[in-house]
Amino acid sequence: MTDTAAMLAVALDEARLGLAEGGIPIGAALFGPDGQLLGRGRNRRVQDDDPSMHAETAAFRAAGRLRGYGATTMVTTLSPCWYCSGLVRQFGIGHVVIGEAETFQGGHEWLAGHGVKITVLDDAECAAMMRDFIAARPDLWNEDIGR
Amino acid sequence: MTDTAAMLAVALDEARLGLAEGGIPIGAALFGPDGQLLGRGRNRRVQDDDPSMHAETAAFRAAGRLRGYGATTMVTTLSPCWYCSGLVRQFGIGHVVIGEAETFQGGHEWLAGHGVKITVLDDAECAAMMRDFIAARPDLWNEDIGR
Repeated sequence: MTDTAAMLAVALDEARLGLAEGGIPIGAALFGPDGQLLGRGRNRRVQDDDPSMHAETAAFRAAGRLRGYGATTMVTTLSPCWYCSGLVRQFGIGHVVIGEAETFQGGHEWLAGHGVKITVLDDAECAAMMRDFIAARPDLWNEDIGR
Repeated sequence: MTDTAAMLAVALDEARLGLAEGGIPIGAALFGPDGQLLGRGRNRRVQDDDPSMHAETAAFRAAGRLRGYGATTMVTTLSPCWYCSGLVRQFGIGHVVIGEAETFQGGHEWLAGHGVKITVLDDAECAAMMRDFIAARPDLWNEDIGR
């Protein structure tokens, strides 16, 4: 899978699952150099009472122990926060595909400045899902980003 | 507990436990405003086959869901990598106490530039433990920092 829209569909599916579970609707997936799915996951703050499992960290974790992330692509429904941007930088993930960066801007411009390829899709469904969620549960959203 | 040496002892104990388990010897602990221990943990890459559990993320996770990290202190045996530095920045952890930044330098200067109080203790035991580990298991160490 190398089509960004098809990759985003996997992350969006995770976000929808999270929403259905009462969680924060952010999903992510890590793909290998030939577009193979390595891991997928969603924010698990509510589901597992785990503040360390953002969508990107969950997808990274699900992919298991790997060597060399330069040719991998992290797809996420939302601009990665500093925590998840730090993950991308430390492990040298080569490409980040972002559903939307309108409801929240994390560190994706910082990553671009450090040589990470960044693709922002401006996806309307991702943005609507987050906008609705933030309006409905500002408490949970602020907790998740440390505000 | 507000004495940095006493706080470091908790992180160092975690690092030693990790080493005894065959893991990467990095430990961390999160303390509250009155010096109360909120969570402690160690790198779990080897033990749990989990690349997402660095010492700082493990301590953060163990502390559970909290609101407002500004008055908390993260103590870690080693300079936090970009992943863990991103965690500190996103959640606004106010103070990071670092055992040593000699065997590895992560993002602690970047954090200082963003208003995080940074204390580097130059602890000889932390540095010796990492130096010995890196010499003995460069493969594991490089895997853990994405090299």
